[in-house]
Amino acid sequence: MIKLAIDGMGGDFAPEPIIKGTLQALDKYSNIEITVFGDEEKMAPFLKEHPRLKIVHTTSFLDMGIEDPVFEYRNNKEHSLFKAMQFVADGHADAVVTAGPTQAVVVGGQLILRKMKGMRRAAIAPIIPSYDRQGKIMLDSGANVDLAPEHILNLAIYASIVAKEVLKRENPKIALINIGSEESKGRPQDRETYELLKNNENINFFGNLEPKEVFTTEADVLVTDGFTGNIVMKTMEGTAIGLGMVLEREIKSKLRNKIGYLFMKPALRAFKKSLDASEIGGALVIGLNHVLIKAHGSSNDFAFFNAIRQAKEMIEKDVINTVGNILNKKD
Amino acid sequence: MIKLAIDGMGGDFAPEPIIKGTLQALDKYSNIEITVFGDEEKMAPFLKEHPRLKIVHTTSFLDMGIEDPVFEYRNNKEHSLFKAMQFVADGHADAVVTAGPTQAVVVGGQLILRKMKGMRRAAIAPIIPSYDRQGKIMLDSGANVDLAPEHILNLAIYASIVAKEVLKRENPKIALINIGSEESKGRPQDRETYELLKNNENINFFGNLEPKEVFTTEADVLVTDGFTGNIVMKTMEGTAIGLGMVLEREIKSKLRNKIGYLFMKPALRAFKKSLDASEIGGALVIGLNHVLIKAHGSSNDFAFFNAIRQAKEMIEKDVINTVGNILNKKD
Repeated sequence: MIKLAIDGMGGDFAPEPIIKGTLQALDKYSNIEITVFGDEEKMAPFLKEHPRLKIVHTTSFLDMGIEDPVFEYRNNKEHSLFKAMQFVADGHADAVVTAGPTQAVVVGGQLILRKMKGMRRAAIAPIIPSYDRQGKIMLDSGANVDLAPEHILNLAIYASIVAKEVLKRENPKIALINIGSEESKGRPQDRETYELLKNNENINFFGNLEPKEVFTTEADVLVTDGFTGNIVMKTMEGTAIGLGMVLEREIKSKLRNKIGYLFMKPALRAFKKSLDASEIGGALVIGLNHVLIKAHGSSNDFAFFNAIRQAKEMIEKDVINTVGNILNKKD
Repeated sequence: MIKLAIDGMGGDFAPEPIIKGTLQALDKYSNIEITVFGDEEKMAPFLKEHPRLKIVHTTSFLDMGIEDPVFEYRNNKEHSLFKAMQFVADGHADAVVTAGPTQAVVVGGQLILRKMKGMRRAAIAPIIPSYDRQGKIMLDSGANVDLAPEHILNLAIYASIVAKEVLKRENPKIALINIGSEESKGRPQDRETYELLKNNENINFFGNLEPKEVFTTEADVLVTDGFTGNIVMKTMEGTAIGLGMVLEREIKSKLRNKIGYLFMKPALRAFKKSLDASEIGGALVIGLNHVLIKAHGSSNDFAFFNAIRQAKEMIEKDVINTVGNILNKKD
C-alpha cells in the first residue's frame, strides 16, 4: 500500500479541489492510502467517508502570499503543510502532495524532509508543456539562485530517472539550456556544466539547447541554474498570456472575426488545453529524502488528481532509491 | 544632411530588400544621404539612380553563418559590413545600418566604431513587441555573457535617452528583469544592479520585472545581463513559434476549424503583425562612438526601411552626445 500525506489547505482554491482530486485518486487507485491535513470544518462540505482516507485536523495553514517561510516554520509547525511533511519525515507516509506556496514548499522540504545523501541541493522541476503533448522536465526552476555545475549534474541524474520511470521515456535526453548550441557557448559555469553532463555515464546528453526550441525540442529534460530556469519558465508564461491577450483583442475587433471565433472555439480550447501543465502534473521538488510534489497554486480537481498520480508513480518506481544508488556508488 | 552607410550584402535575402528599403527611405526622407557598400553586379537589378545615393563596390561580404568574426576581421577588412563601418569611423557618414550576422556586427562595432568615452561595454538592444503595440527596448540581449552592475547602469542610461528621444516616451521607465518583484530578489549582482538603478538621478526606475509581464508591462526599457537577456529573447521567440505551431495543428484537425480560420484570417494576420518587430525597427548596438543599427537577418524591405528610419532619428536627436554628456559629467 502506498501512503500519501496531503496538504488539504494549500492552493488558491483550497480545500475544494484538493479534496475532490483526493477522492478521485482514491477511487481510481486501489493501492493508495491518503491522510489529509487541514481544517475539518472547511473541508467537511467536500469530504466523503472512504476506507482509505484519514483526516488530521489542523487549525492553521499558510497564506499563499507568505513571504518568509523560514520564519514561519520556526514560529509555528502546526500549519497543514508542515504537519503533512513531518508525518512523512516520521515514516508514517511515503510522499507529500501540496498546492501550497512554492517557497514554503521548498523550505519545508529542505528543513523537514531533508536532502538525500549524495545530493547537495534540492530543485524545483516542473513538467512544462511541449509540442508533442508529452511534456518535459525543466530544472531548476527557482529553488536556488546559484547552482554550481556539480549540483546541476546531480539534479540531472535525478531528473533522468524520473523521465525514464515516470514519464516513460526510453533513454531520456538531457539538454543544457544555453544561449547557443555550440559547446563553447555561454558563461564559464555553463561550459563546465556541459563538460560534466557530456562525460557522465548516467546521462544521455543532448547538448546545448537554445530556448527558441524550448517548446519543440526532442530533449526530455532541460537543465540550467535556478535563476535562468525561473526566467525561462516565467518568460514562457508571459509570452503565452500576452499572445492570448493580443489574439482576444483581434477577435473582438471585427464581426467577421467573432464569427470565425465561434467556428474555431473547439480548436482554441484544444489549443489552450495543450498548454495546460495540469494535464501532465505538478512540479517535483527533487533532491530530498522523500517524494514531494508541488501542484500548481491554481490547481483544479484534475490537476491535483494528476499530482497525486505522479507521487504514486514516483513511489511505485522507487525513484529515490534508484537515484541514491547511482549517486552514492559514485561518491 | 544626415549621412548613412549601409551594408548592402548583409541579411538572409540581401541585397534585394536592403536596396528596396534604402530607396524607400531616400524617397521618404529628403534630409538623408546614403552610401551602400556591396557587390554592384548583385545589387544592380534592384538599384535605381538617385541623387542622394552612392554605391561603393565591394567584392567580399560576410556569410550569415560566420563563426569567428574576429578572425575574419583580422584577415579581410574588405567585407561590405566592415567597409561601411570604416567609412563611418573615418568620419564620412554618421551611422551604419546592416542586417548582417549579429556577432560580426557587434565585433565590428567594437573594433571599428569603438566604445564611446565613459562606456565600458557595448550591448545589443532590440526593440521587442508589446501588448500596447509601442515596443520596448531590451538589453543586453547577447553582446556580453558577463555584465557587471555598473555596466548595466551605463547601458540603462543610454537606453533611457533612446526611449525618450527616439521612441518618444516621456520620462521612460527602466525595469530590471528579475525572478521576483521584491527588492531582495535575485542573485547578488541583481540586487547590486537594483541599488545602482534606484539611486541614479538619470534613471526613472520602475523596479524589478518578472518576465511573466514581459509583454504587458508599462516599463519602456528592460535591462539585464547579456546571458539572461538572450535567454528571455529566445524564450519569447520559441514560445511564440511553438504556440503558432500548436494553433496550426488544431486548425487543420477539423473542417469546422478550417471554416473558422477563413473568417478569422484578418485577425490572425493582425495578430502576427503585432508580434513582428520589423514594424518597429531593428536592434540598436549601443555604447559605441557612432550609431549602429542591426536589422533582423530576415528583414524585408519595410523592416530595413524602419531600421534606416531609426538610424536617422538617433542622429537627429543627437543621442550619442546626450549620453556622452551624462556619462562624462558623472565620471
